[in-house]
Amino acid sequence: MEKITSEMLKKLIDENNVKELREIFIKVPPIDLADASNELTDIKDLVFLFRYIKSEYTASLFAELKQEKKEELINALSDNELATILLKQANDDIADFIEELPANVVNRVLKNVQKDKRNEINALLNYQEHSAGSIMTTEYLELLDTINVDEAIQTIRKIGKEKETILTLFIRNKDRSLVGELGLDDLIFAKPKDNLKDIMQKEVITVNVNTDQEEVAKIMKRYDLQAIAVLNEDQKLVGIITIDDALDVMEDEASEDFIQMGHVSPIENSYLQTGVIKLALKSVPWLIILMVLGVFTSLILSTFQDTLALLPVLTVFIPLLMDAGGNAGNQSTTLIIRGLAIGEIKIKDYFKIIWKELRVALISALILAVACFSWLLIEMYIGIVSYPNSDIVATMDNLGIFKARLMIALAVTITIFIVVIFAKLLGVSLPIFVKLIKLDPALISSPFLTTIIDVITLVVYFVTSVYILHLVV
Amino acid sequence: MEKITSEMLKKLIDENNVKELREIFIKVPPIDLADASNELTDIKDLVFLFRYIKSEYTASLFAELKQEKKEELINALSDNELATILLKQANDDIADFIEELPANVVNRVLKNVQKDKRNEINALLNYQEHSAGSIMTTEYLELLDTINVDEAIQTIRKIGKEKETILTLFIRNKDRSLVGELGLDDLIFAKPKDNLKDIMQKEVITVNVNTDQEEVAKIMKRYDLQAIAVLNEDQKLVGIITIDDALDVMEDEASEDFIQMGHVSPIENSYLQTGVIKLALKSVPWLIILMVLGVFTSLILSTFQDTLALLPVLTVFIPLLMDAGGNAGNQSTTLIIRGLAIGEIKIKDYFKIIWKELRVALISALILAVACFSWLLIEMYIGIVSYPNSDIVATMDNLGIFKARLMIALAVTITIFIVVIFAKLLGVSLPIFVKLIKLDPALISSPFLTTIIDVITLVVYFVTSVYILHLVV
Repeated sequence: MEKITSEMLKKLIDENNVKELREIFIKVPPIDLADASNELTDIKDLVFLFRYIKSEYTASLFAELKQEKKEELINALSDNELATILLKQANDDIADFIEELPANVVNRVLKNVQKDKRNEINALLNYQEHSAGSIMTTEYLELLDTINVDEAIQTIRKIGKEKETILTLFIRNKDRSLVGELGLDDLIFAKPKDNLKDIMQKEVITVNVNTDQEEVAKIMKRYDLQAIAVLNEDQKLVGIITIDDALDVMEDEASEDFIQMGHVSPIENSYLQTGVIKLALKSVPWLIILMVLGVFTSLILSTFQDTLALLPVLTVFIPLLMDAGGNAGNQSTTLIIRGLAIGEIKIKDYFKIIWKELRVALISALILAVACFSWLLIEMYIGIVSYPNSDIVATMDNLGIFKARLMIALAVTITIFIVVIFAKLLGVSLPIFVKLIKLDPALISSPFLTTIIDVITLVVYFVTSVYILHLVV
Repeated sequence: MEKITSEMLKKLIDENNVKELREIFIKVPPIDLADASNELTDIKDLVFLFRYIKSEYTASLFAELKQEKKEELINALSDNELATILLKQANDDIADFIEELPANVVNRVLKNVQKDKRNEINALLNYQEHSAGSIMTTEYLELLDTINVDEAIQTIRKIGKEKETILTLFIRNKDRSLVGELGLDDLIFAKPKDNLKDIMQKEVITVNVNTDQEEVAKIMKRYDLQAIAVLNEDQKLVGIITIDDALDVMEDEASEDFIQMGHVSPIENSYLQTGVIKLALKSVPWLIILMVLGVFTSLILSTFQDTLALLPVLTVFIPLLMDAGGNAGNQSTTLIIRGLAIGEIKIKDYFKIIWKELRVALISALILAVACFSWLLIEMYIGIVSYPNSDIVATMDNLGIFKARLMIALAVTITIFIVVIFAKLLGVSLPIFVKLIKLDPALISSPFLTTIIDVITLVVYFVTSVYILHLVV
């Protein structure tokens, strides 16, 4: 089947072809309908769909629409129509989109949901952002441990449709405590007269309402869970989190880490949906911080100005050296930040990591130094870099011009060797230190790393050059 | 329950306490047992577990062990014991770990699996790496469309346990063509005498055996699928992919993108499990490439050596300018690469993106330029940068010393303004161009971006300085 487009929808709406629209809504997955509907520019077209298509289908379309369209639509629908759509939304979904709505629209939404649903939504809204409580749903299926498989299936048939999932069933005792868990497949495989108590899995993995959502996603992924129970402080079951919501969390967190490594503050929406001014304001602060940190390199270079005046050719290799150090450090930082993010690396592994990285650094630095020296000889041979005129070279303790060039290449090579080792050790240490003081390694590490390495590079370079070339200022 | 550790296992093994070990194996999730077992240094301890614990439990432990332990274990077990464990492994899992084994061990493994299982494993091994075929399982549940719900449940009870999942059921007609799909929950909600044909979902989302695994994961995520059907070239169902395998693919790909942005070639295993030499060899090539690309900055600086000799203070601001350009460009690149990776940004959006980024760049550059000029005035006032002695300043067309400093600050500010705009436009263009020529934007974009921006920065800086400061060489 060809993919549905907003043009196809628009055409059918303009033709009033409700019959074909209904067929499309039955066949096409809601997420594809949402992609097409999001591009309908006239909100009246969307209202048309919500008026003439069964709410059974439009409810799932609504859930997938982007936030701005939801808001426009809420404003355009009557109270009655709004109530119909909201009735079929999951409580956690309503809570999620309410969080982004302006206050007056929130009131209109809450006014139009049933009272018991409203209470549950309000409860969800009160949990801390990024906590398990804020992403859980209260629509889970709970069964008493004393009933048998047949009775359980009867109950599921009766009330299961309103629940977010029936793939995982939560079992409670008569004191309302969670005592076990059962997969729907286990229920199918069990004998009809088996008691749930005897076939359920008694060791249940749970999280607390205050557990961080990223931690929840990690646990669900680790144990391959379809749904996880969320307990309150009294150890009572108050909600569940399903794998699709956990997946969204995982993706958001991965995006956030990735984007922060590029020195941009995380943006909530996608690039195309975020405004120009917001994008600029998200990127400028880091650029200013990095610029101000640049004062340290300026200081060093300022100090060594006279050396540079004596032998300006030294400047030629500054970018090369700074890039090498920065890149070597960033390589290590990236590996460690990723390891910390997926929980593979623990802070207690620090000395193991440092010892490993020291060996990696020595090997890398050695190979790179050999490559660097060879490459500088080639550059020299081809004549890419023009060397200073003889009276400047003369200051170098009367070295011959060829020997002087060799000495410059040697100074650059020694610098690269030392800097790569420093950079790699610092590259693994900094994120672990940042994590230790409870900050986010992806956000903090890289800019400071670059600045520290730049400074080290320049100092090592000038000291080595002055020493090797006998530059007397 | 406290978390199981290798010390706890070791103690029970040394005590020959099979009873308690059996209890632990019943209670503790396989992944936690695997974490502890991976740390047992003596392979005999692991063999002990596999000998005295029911294969029902050790089979799932085996699936979660790390590759090296699997290999050690295979070598230590008798043919009989090996056959027992392999019998309970999913075919796709066996195919996965076989791919990493040395040839002689592969033969021993294949010799010890039943013939029909062996044929299926061989078939899986023949699919291209990273294709849907290579990650699918052939153990899915297929039902005939003419049976009713009751009969379907009977069939599931009989043969479902050997299948990878029964949460999604695949429905075929008598010609063995896939005609529909059914969730286990739909089966529960249906009436016992309903024909599958009438309750199944007819629009089935499928992938081909050659579809890239990343694409498969994206589709499953988009449509919230528990399992997806994999068809061969003749449009016949040959396997399925379950969400847990798709999740692993998503995580691997996200890690890969992330790590590549740090200029490291992707590593298959985790940081701690990868050897020192391998880690060094993964990072050195990029460092060498970046060093060789540095030839361009060397060329520019070499050309402007005489200008630098005239006014060495210009060198002081080179790192600051290069970092600003590099960072501004990398910000944009990161956002675009992420957008391309999650499929939010399409190549056809190029002009929309350029127009958006141009406005973002203008605003960012303007704010940054104002901040830069102010900051340089402060630096000047505090005296962080020592300025050249008067006879060098004299070459600047006899400007007064204060005016000369202001002019230098102005040259730096103008450079930062121009460079940020260039960098941001290039930052969005390069990944899209790289994607267009079918290369991986995360791998290629950043090093070239840095080099190009470095070169632009230096040229703009020197041209501006020469012009503003009337530097006559």
